[in-house]
Amino acid sequence: MKQPLALTLGEPAGIGPDLCVELANRIDCDDLLVIGDRAVIEARAKALGKSIDRLRIEHIVFPAPVVPGQLNPANSATVVDILKRAAQGCLAGTYAAVVTCPVHKGVINDAGIAFSGHTEFFAEQTGGYPVMLLACPGLRVALVTTHLPLAQVPAAITAERLDAVLTVLHQDMHKGFGILNPRLLVCGLNPHAGESGHLGREEIDVISPTLAKLRTQGIQCIGPVPADTAFAPHLLNQADVIVAMYHDQGLPVLKARGFGEAVNVTLGLPIIRTSVDHGTALELAGAGKADVGSLISAIETARQMLDHAA
Amino acid sequence: MKQPLALTLGEPAGIGPDLCVELANRIDCDDLLVIGDRAVIEARAKALGKSIDRLRIEHIVFPAPVVPGQLNPANSATVVDILKRAAQGCLAGTYAAVVTCPVHKGVINDAGIAFSGHTEFFAEQTGGYPVMLLACPGLRVALVTTHLPLAQVPAAITAERLDAVLTVLHQDMHKGFGILNPRLLVCGLNPHAGESGHLGREEIDVISPTLAKLRTQGIQCIGPVPADTAFAPHLLNQADVIVAMYHDQGLPVLKARGFGEAVNVTLGLPIIRTSVDHGTALELAGAGKADVGSLISAIETARQMLDHAA
Repeated sequence: MKQPLALTLGEPAGIGPDLCVELANRIDCDDLLVIGDRAVIEARAKALGKSIDRLRIEHIVFPAPVVPGQLNPANSATVVDILKRAAQGCLAGTYAAVVTCPVHKGVINDAGIAFSGHTEFFAEQTGGYPVMLLACPGLRVALVTTHLPLAQVPAAITAERLDAVLTVLHQDMHKGFGILNPRLLVCGLNPHAGESGHLGREEIDVISPTLAKLRTQGIQCIGPVPADTAFAPHLLNQADVIVAMYHDQGLPVLKARGFGEAVNVTLGLPIIRTSVDHGTALELAGAGKADVGSLISAIETARQMLDHAA
Repeated sequence: MKQPLALTLGEPAGIGPDLCVELANRIDCDDLLVIGDRAVIEARAKALGKSIDRLRIEHIVFPAPVVPGQLNPANSATVVDILKRAAQGCLAGTYAAVVTCPVHKGVINDAGIAFSGHTEFFAEQTGGYPVMLLACPGLRVALVTTHLPLAQVPAAITAERLDAVLTVLHQDMHKGFGILNPRLLVCGLNPHAGESGHLGREEIDVISPTLAKLRTQGIQCIGPVPADTAFAPHLLNQADVIVAMYHDQGLPVLKARGFGEAVNVTLGLPIIRTSVDHGTALELAGAGKADVGSLISAIETARQMLDHAA
């Protein structure tokens, strides 16, 4: 039997347990192994009037009681331990890949554990240069910078970072999506991609020279193009992935288009990792209203990535 | 007979003349008056094998020959004069409103005329606090800042500017769209709207206090919300307009959704002004491939705004 996909439970007071329950009642879970507290998932299943008989669980006990909707820092170290176990298990070959349910960054930091996000955490655990890519049917968006205050974005768009991100995409779009020599449509940093320097010089000074250099290496980079035309059909059809310079340049379009069915993929790591595209939704925990669409997409994408890697 | 809508020709080497020709063959133009060079429009009509018999034209001669696709700074002063004539005519009551075809900022500046955009030009001519709003079926997006290098955006998000923009939207959404007491869904500046200060403090220091103050004045401002969830259906349905903090936060979604049928409206001026949502498309001039959809939307929107103002 093949190694299972590890599915991390995430924040136990959020909708992670709900999603696991829904999953067990919606898709074939034979290749999945949930890493989390069996009692928490069973309690949520009972509240929702559903069964989790089909779900395989690697049982990890949370030290404090779990109340849906109520964050408790006393459980945060265990949330992080589950992620570490998943990352190390992927490296060791115990798991084939990891799919993550949402965690709550605030409560983890409140517990005294520095944590800026799954993507960064897995990169620390496994090495590699993480690149965040979100995908929904018909659209893939990768980010050059991720969770930075907007004021810090312009200085973070360096030739080194851009080179690293585009190189990962060039190499890993095959591993991830079966696309050889992908067409990367790169947005400018400034409105209208700087309009020939009238609206900022980063395109002239940093982005265009880097794209020119990468083209000599055989990487297909189109751009820099204005972000507000990049997603129009005539340009979108020329690209396998849109590369946005920062979070809110690229993700609003993706979420508008694919909310609830988008998947978050980390490329550039030595392991396969996908995730839901949403947060912990504390207010929905235990309410029977959690939408499992994004998690199913994340699992299906991880399975496809395993096929491409095989 | 009522005052006509002035339609400015824009950059004569671009698709403005093509759009006027298409227009004359597509919609009822009785209430329109094109301001531009009759000979240029007739030449374009001949090239396209179409008639402009139905088009009323206020004839303004360009001093230099007009070649489709070839910018000539010698004509730029006349391009700007046409805009000035339209603005002053609206103020004087000679025209009911102005609808603009695209101009080319670069060639106007090359001609030694400082020009940062239609929106700013009309504000200089007529006074008022211009607010740029783009609309397509099912979505309206207003911008707090417009054509600024990204590095200058955070400092430009001041309480004064935010107050002014939201107040204009509150007042003018009725004039513009017949919506009294509009629901304004305001995005944060930073990713995840700053995530409680972890990803930037502008939401805490500037945006939230300003929204709170405006709420006490009866203005319906929701937010600040993360830009990548603002456009998801469950939030979009709660709003009459999405307020983005900057160009590439708001316009990619709108252009992805409504490319070719979006309209650009300037609120906050004492005149009614709408525009196409695209540029001069020099490469399409005279080629018979210009899409007149956005111009028709701009004219229809101006007509609706006149009805609401009546």
